[in-house]
Amino acid sequence: MHYPEPISKLIESFMKLPGIGPKTAVRLSFHVLTMKEDTVLDFAKALVNAKRNLSYCSVCGHITDQDPCYICEDKRRDRSIVCVVQDPKDVIAMEKMKEYKGLYHVLHGAISPMDGIGPEDINIPDLLKRLQDDEIQEVILATNPNIEGESTAMYISRLLRPTSIKMTRIAHGLPVGGDLEYADEVTLSKALEGRREL
Amino acid sequence: MHYPEPISKLIESFMKLPGIGPKTAVRLSFHVLTMKEDTVLDFAKALVNAKRNLSYCSVCGHITDQDPCYICEDKRRDRSIVCVVQDPKDVIAMEKMKEYKGLYHVLHGAISPMDGIGPEDINIPDLLKRLQDDEIQEVILATNPNIEGESTAMYISRLLRPTSIKMTRIAHGLPVGGDLEYADEVTLSKALEGRREL
Repeated sequence: MHYPEPISKLIESFMKLPGIGPKTAVRLSFHVLTMKEDTVLDFAKALVNAKRNLSYCSVCGHITDQDPCYICEDKRRDRSIVCVVQDPKDVIAMEKMKEYKGLYHVLHGAISPMDGIGPEDINIPDLLKRLQDDEIQEVILATNPNIEGESTAMYISRLLRPTSIKMTRIAHGLPVGGDLEYADEVTLSKALEGRREL
Repeated sequence: MHYPEPISKLIESFMKLPGIGPKTAVRLSFHVLTMKEDTVLDFAKALVNAKRNLSYCSVCGHITDQDPCYICEDKRRDRSIVCVVQDPKDVIAMEKMKEYKGLYHVLHGAISPMDGIGPEDINIPDLLKRLQDDEIQEVILATNPNIEGESTAMYISRLLRPTSIKMTRIAHGLPVGGDLEYADEVTLSKALEGRREL
C-alpha cells in the first residue's frame, strides 16, 4: 500500500461496511481528512455510543437505549395487538406511517432451511411466551413478502391456530404509485386474489 | 425521528460523508450495531487518528504522517523531475504505477474562475519557490484532463516559460483496454493529434 498508515487503517475500516468497496473507502477516507476535527470526533463518538449504548428490548426485541423500549413502555399504545416483523428497521418503517398503535415483536430474521435457520434460531420462542399473556388478541404477521417471510408467517400461524388469538397477514398487492404494466405476475395475481368490494 | 438517539446521531454522521444519503446511512448504522465492539472501536480510533496524525508535507503538499513526506525524504528518487498533480489521490495513483521515480507537487485544486479559485488559492506560489532550486530540470504537468486541469497546466507553463526548466504535459489519448467505438470525439481527436511513428 502506498498510503500513510493512519489513512490505510481508516480505509480498511470503511471497507468493513456493507456496499463499500476499495474505491469508495478511499474516497470517504480522504473526505474525512477535509472534515473539521470536531465533526470527525463526533462521528467517532457516535460509532462507539451506538455500539455500546444500544441493545435489544427484552420484551419486543427492537433496538433501544432503554429497557423495555419506548414503544413497550408507552401506556397509550394498544396492548391487545402485536405486529410481528423480521427486523428493527421494519419497526421504524411501521412507526413512520404513524397509524399503527399496537406493539411489536422483532424476530431478527426469518425461517430459512437453506441457510440452516430454524424457528428456534429466531425470536419465535419469546413470541410464544409473550402470547400466553391474555391481553393479546391479535397478531399481525408483517414478515417480508418473500419465501422466507411467507414461510415464517405460515409457521407462526400454524403454531398459534389452537389458541383463540386472531392471526392476520399484511396485504399483498400493487404498491401505491406503482404501475400495473410493470407489476410482476405474482404480485398481480396476489392483488387480484386480495380484491375487495367497493 | 423514530430512532433511539445513539443511532440517529450515527446516521447523521454517516450522512455527512459524500455520496451517502439517508437510506445508506441507516443501512450502515444498523450494520455497525451488528459488528464486534473491537471492530467498531478500531473504526472510531482510525477516524480520529487519520484526522489528527495526518497533515500535508511542507515540501510537496502530499498527505503524510511525517514531515517531509516519505517521497520527499527518499534519497533514491530523482530530484531533477517534479510531477505537478491536483490532489494527494493523484500521487497515490502515480505511485501505484511504480514507474515514476521523481518528486511531486500537489496543488490541492485547480484554477477555476467559475468557482472563484485563482492561482494564489492553490499551491502554485510554493511550486514557484521550489523551482528556484537549480536541481529541478523538468516539470511534468499531470493535472486532470478537463477544463480546470488544462487551464492550470497552461497557466503554470506560461509562468515558467522564461526559465530554462523543461515543461511537459502527460499525454491525452485512448485509455488502454478502451474501445475506439466508445471513445468521445475530443479524446479521439487528441489521440490522433498525439500519434507517434512506430
